[in-house]
Amino acid sequence: MLAMRSFFLPGGTIKYRLSFCLLLTVFTMNAFAQNATWIWYPGDFEISLANKMQNRRTERGTFFPVFWKMDNHYVLMDFHKVFQLDQPEKVSIFVEGEYNVKIDGKAFEGSPTEIEIPAGKHKINIKVFNQAQVPAIFVKGTKVISDSTWLVTFEDKEWIDETGKTSDISATQWLNAGSWDFDSPLRRPSQFSLPLKKQSPVSTTKTGNSILVDFGKETFGYIQFHGLIGKGNLSIYYGESREEALSPDHCEALDRVKVDYSFKLEHRQFLSKAFRFVNIQFDPGVNLDSVSMWYEYAGLPERGWFKCNDEEINRIYDVSKYTFELNTREFFIDGIKRDRWIWSGDAYQSYLMNYYLYFDRPTVERTMLALRGKDPVTGHINTIMDYTFYWFIGIYDYYLYTGDLTFIQQFYPRMQSLMDYCLSRRNKDGLLEGLPGDWLFIDWAAGLSKKGELSFEQLLFCRSLETMALCAGIAGDHKGKGEYAKLASDLKAKVFSLYWNPAKNALVHSRIDGKQTDNVTRYSNMFSIFFNYFNDAQKQAVKNSVLLNDSIQKITTPYMRFYELEALCAMGEQDHVMKEIKSYWGGMLKLGATSFWEEYNPDKKGEEHYAMYGRQFGKSLCHAWGASPIYLLGRYYLGVQPTSAGYAAYSIQPVLGGLQWMEGKVPTPSGDILVYCDKKKIRISTVKGNGTLKLKSKIKPTGKNIQVNIISRDVYEISLNPDSNYEISYSAL
Amino acid sequence: MLAMRSFFLPGGTIKYRLSFCLLLTVFTMNAFAQNATWIWYPGDFEISLANKMQNRRTERGTFFPVFWKMDNHYVLMDFHKVFQLDQPEKVSIFVEGEYNVKIDGKAFEGSPTEIEIPAGKHKINIKVFNQAQVPAIFVKGTKVISDSTWLVTFEDKEWIDETGKTSDISATQWLNAGSWDFDSPLRRPSQFSLPLKKQSPVSTTKTGNSILVDFGKETFGYIQFHGLIGKGNLSIYYGESREEALSPDHCEALDRVKVDYSFKLEHRQFLSKAFRFVNIQFDPGVNLDSVSMWYEYAGLPERGWFKCNDEEINRIYDVSKYTFELNTREFFIDGIKRDRWIWSGDAYQSYLMNYYLYFDRPTVERTMLALRGKDPVTGHINTIMDYTFYWFIGIYDYYLYTGDLTFIQQFYPRMQSLMDYCLSRRNKDGLLEGLPGDWLFIDWAAGLSKKGELSFEQLLFCRSLETMALCAGIAGDHKGKGEYAKLASDLKAKVFSLYWNPAKNALVHSRIDGKQTDNVTRYSNMFSIFFNYFNDAQKQAVKNSVLLNDSIQKITTPYMRFYELEALCAMGEQDHVMKEIKSYWGGMLKLGATSFWEEYNPDKKGEEHYAMYGRQFGKSLCHAWGASPIYLLGRYYLGVQPTSAGYAAYSIQPVLGGLQWMEGKVPTPSGDILVYCDKKKIRISTVKGNGTLKLKSKIKPTGKNIQVNIISRDVYEISLNPDSNYEISYSAL
Repeated sequence: MLAMRSFFLPGGTIKYRLSFCLLLTVFTMNAFAQNATWIWYPGDFEISLANKMQNRRTERGTFFPVFWKMDNHYVLMDFHKVFQLDQPEKVSIFVEGEYNVKIDGKAFEGSPTEIEIPAGKHKINIKVFNQAQVPAIFVKGTKVISDSTWLVTFEDKEWIDETGKTSDISATQWLNAGSWDFDSPLRRPSQFSLPLKKQSPVSTTKTGNSILVDFGKETFGYIQFHGLIGKGNLSIYYGESREEALSPDHCEALDRVKVDYSFKLEHRQFLSKAFRFVNIQFDPGVNLDSVSMWYEYAGLPERGWFKCNDEEINRIYDVSKYTFELNTREFFIDGIKRDRWIWSGDAYQSYLMNYYLYFDRPTVERTMLALRGKDPVTGHINTIMDYTFYWFIGIYDYYLYTGDLTFIQQFYPRMQSLMDYCLSRRNKDGLLEGLPGDWLFIDWAAGLSKKGELSFEQLLFCRSLETMALCAGIAGDHKGKGEYAKLASDLKAKVFSLYWNPAKNALVHSRIDGKQTDNVTRYSNMFSIFFNYFNDAQKQAVKNSVLLNDSIQKITTPYMRFYELEALCAMGEQDHVMKEIKSYWGGMLKLGATSFWEEYNPDKKGEEHYAMYGRQFGKSLCHAWGASPIYLLGRYYLGVQPTSAGYAAYSIQPVLGGLQWMEGKVPTPSGDILVYCDKKKIRISTVKGNGTLKLKSKIKPTGKNIQVNIISRDVYEISLNPDSNYEISYSAL
Repeated sequence: MLAMRSFFLPGGTIKYRLSFCLLLTVFTMNAFAQNATWIWYPGDFEISLANKMQNRRTERGTFFPVFWKMDNHYVLMDFHKVFQLDQPEKVSIFVEGEYNVKIDGKAFEGSPTEIEIPAGKHKINIKVFNQAQVPAIFVKGTKVISDSTWLVTFEDKEWIDETGKTSDISATQWLNAGSWDFDSPLRRPSQFSLPLKKQSPVSTTKTGNSILVDFGKETFGYIQFHGLIGKGNLSIYYGESREEALSPDHCEALDRVKVDYSFKLEHRQFLSKAFRFVNIQFDPGVNLDSVSMWYEYAGLPERGWFKCNDEEINRIYDVSKYTFELNTREFFIDGIKRDRWIWSGDAYQSYLMNYYLYFDRPTVERTMLALRGKDPVTGHINTIMDYTFYWFIGIYDYYLYTGDLTFIQQFYPRMQSLMDYCLSRRNKDGLLEGLPGDWLFIDWAAGLSKKGELSFEQLLFCRSLETMALCAGIAGDHKGKGEYAKLASDLKAKVFSLYWNPAKNALVHSRIDGKQTDNVTRYSNMFSIFFNYFNDAQKQAVKNSVLLNDSIQKITTPYMRFYELEALCAMGEQDHVMKEIKSYWGGMLKLGATSFWEEYNPDKKGEEHYAMYGRQFGKSLCHAWGASPIYLLGRYYLGVQPTSAGYAAYSIQPVLGGLQWMEGKVPTPSGDILVYCDKKKIRISTVKGNGTLKLKSKIKPTGKNIQVNIISRDVYEISLNPDSNYEISYSAL
């Protein structure tokens, strides 16, 4: 009954093992919650909410929706559960949609809001239609309550024969209902919105018919006018920078208001926006007293934290957190000013940051469900081939960090159909190249070639196939497991035979017309490090030939910086990376950044920093991918990472990387791991699961209740018991 | 350039030929309408309207939705067209949804309702989001108008690179927009409803706190109360029969009204119902003056008609027409009392009746689109295997009668994916048997075996594959054409080798565990006649061994009666069929039917006629499939049928079948064919296309401007010119 498997981790060289039986027990317990909650078809609320959120994007006052297929909820839904009742009970029913209620196949007249269920074993069905919103129910009796143990389907296939006999010979998969935290009948899923809190400007400059307001830092929400009066037009020009707000012709976001108030009114804008500065211009007939705003936020509790002796690093960590807070909304979005969309590649990094800050599972799940949408698959996620693959790899990480099997079991069919799409697009050599409709992104980088078959895409494809093999096992698809594993290993072998160039000591960028090109870029080389696809010799070679080689095109986005620095950390280059963090993120702070940017090039000057996509203020100054120090500091300095699913086992490998001391917490499913580390002392509070402290020390570490294993010269391992405190003396190298 | 092909017709032995070039010219002309009209993604309005209509079903006051997947519109839609303008023009824009407007890729600010387009060649894009309703636009300038020449997609896949350059490397199929007759900006598709007209009862009986109202005949619509006053409960019990209305406990449809009016009010029920009788019961505190109703109807103009010397047949024809009128609504539905749903097998017969009465193409298209829904295919249409096949065969007929290529070209991908679903469910012998989730219907018939592989299902499958081959050719899928044709011919051969029993002179009903069963039923034998799958010897043998053999289980539904009588007519048994029509449909009239029933068994007595499905009033007394005399009289007595697509060629083969004289019109795409026939004279007015009169006569027929070809003893053919009148003398056999 105890299945053991091993799988390569991204971002490390450690294999992990897991016990399915144990995990199944732990993680299905959640499914038997005692409280009634609103339920729906899994994924449907998420898709619907994503549609609402993403359609709030405007560009200079114009509605700006996505350019890929927007999916929709199933409009007709059947919910059911069988209950065994010792006594009859009264049950209240709340529904979003038109509905009927059946007990043991017999319908109540009308759409009852309260029913009585007799004692005994009974099946309750509620069938709901809702075109505009997600069909959802909330049921509350004593034992009869709605939760994720209810089963749902969009096709119940029940019919009668000529004698009136009802048959249900459905082959339909009944799925466990989806839910979140809508635990009161009044908290209707369709009415969901993020909380708001009031914020005031730090300065307001009124000149004639215009007002310039500065909120002191990057923020997001709804502008509110106080004492608005008169008749005429009013325009609001939003700016992440003062320059942008003062540029009515080039600012990215604006609003027009037709004012016609004969007495002073409070007026709140309907659409939220991102800004620090707001420039309000109005006709002579219009006036207003003051301006404030409603800050809109997700309000997830911060569980992880980091501090150290270096105040610049502390500031970088804090601004990273704030950047990440602003971009963690209904979903993990890319940036708050422009797109406000869910981009799979961007979201993938947010998942990882989240595991070191909020450890909020629902936002990860929601984001993955919204990205995946529904069948049929008609294009890559966000139209981008690499973004499809990040979606798969994100599931891999999700499982590793949370240990949750339910999500994978529930959505494995959607993984399969997306992978079928990818497999169907391979060329005659079994490789993926850009077909019409495919966007090959990789990174914003001048002149990056997208021609032919890119090594980077094949690498991500291979990792995605490995994820499929893992998930096939979890979902009980044993045939699929073998097939995906074979596809993955074949592809990996092909990647090395086709792209590895021994003279260059690197994977080349691409293959055109069946031939290796000369082009070496960082992307596939750095991913191969933390995918553990290189052998040790290759890793060392690539570190010098690519990673630390300034003649290879530099990375200018924090997006790919994330992976570049991760690869270096995975090779033990924390000292080097610390300097890079201070120079790159510290560089933005020196320019006055209050949140981290979509792109940063230290060679640019002044307003040049705000331009992108050929637009004067096209760049987002608050981009989720700018917040990666959260992840790097937690994972590679505090050094905490799961080594089997859900932190059933984990390692702690603190590396000061040039700091005098550091301290912080890393959240896990069963609590937060505390790590303090200076050059002589390490203090740790552990959680459930089997921990291993790995450290380098000039002396053999000492402490209470520890057994020290010597791994190699100056390298030690100490097993850590669950829920324990340790204080260890050592001497940093 | 002139492709010629031949294909077997259902319901006849004639091959037809068609010229694609000619037809393409004729039928794409429609696409260049001069009037602005509301447009949408093809199929989406239809699916959305079907959802609305089908969800109006209630059973004893309870919402009763379908038990298969209800599809949904695409919520985000891009519409575009390129215009060449000699002069700038002002264009008005009306949209259902949030939207933006672009000219040559550049967006207007906000959501403009009027724009100016400069002279020259310009591309206009309108992108619309609407979750609750179908995204639709109405655009009206001088040359710039919205019509079905606009292109639409649900994924435009336009993106920009890091320099801001926009790319559109979409591989998406842009489809021609869908439209109907929403030719004014005020006629918004989402607001569509059928017209209403007032009807009064023929009798009202008031006794104490109840009123029994008789509308004199089967009808459909909204009950209206006049002078409703007081406080208390009121119940409405609807009845297709007096007995049903008087049975509050067993009537199929009822409404409850909470009355709380302190002065007399007009009150109209919100949901339409089918009824002849209405029994209204109310609390002592409630009163009302009188009751009337609003009749709801599609109002399609009747183009076909039939009359003859036999008044019973004339009455049968009229009641058939009324039955069909009641069931021809937003879509062709099964029956107005109970399901009010679109059932593919029922609708298939309505298509055929429609070709002989309304010739209304939009209702056929809407019905087929609503039935098909969207990908992915997760079950058979209406969950019924045979109903999937009727859908394919319905397209075949649609093409034959209308000649319209556009529909097939547009929806061929949805045909393919549905056929893929069928093909994927074949067993190891390449046959279809019932898998979990499949309903094998065939007919309501006691004890009908559904075990093993049914010959009937294989026959329909084979015909569907032939349809796919035809449509593949039309859609330009030449590879598919060959593949489907091969699959069809292989399956046909298999059907005869596996099911034909020479001793029984019949196809047997089924095959269980790889062996022919002994069971012979009428279904596959009669279909093989008008599918022309039998050779002449088999046909004659089957006529006696099955069709006219009383020991073979009888058919009791007008549904299968349709095909049984069609098969007999196709074999020249019009005399016999006329007697059957008089006895079967005449039988219902003698029992007081004002519309034709779902099922009729002359052996039953009194109220027994109203029962079905184990329910006292379960039977529908107004069922579309009861109206088949419309089709039989038009096609097999007046004898008019297309012999190539869209009546480019057609035949007229009048057969009196025992009547003294008959007269009538049959609609075609280019006008109505008039036929008068008695025993000595035939008068015909023709339409466009090449007609052929076929007749049996004791003498050689004579008349002006005709050339008579002698086919065999007493059998003659006369070519008919387009748009001409003929009077022919002959002597009926």
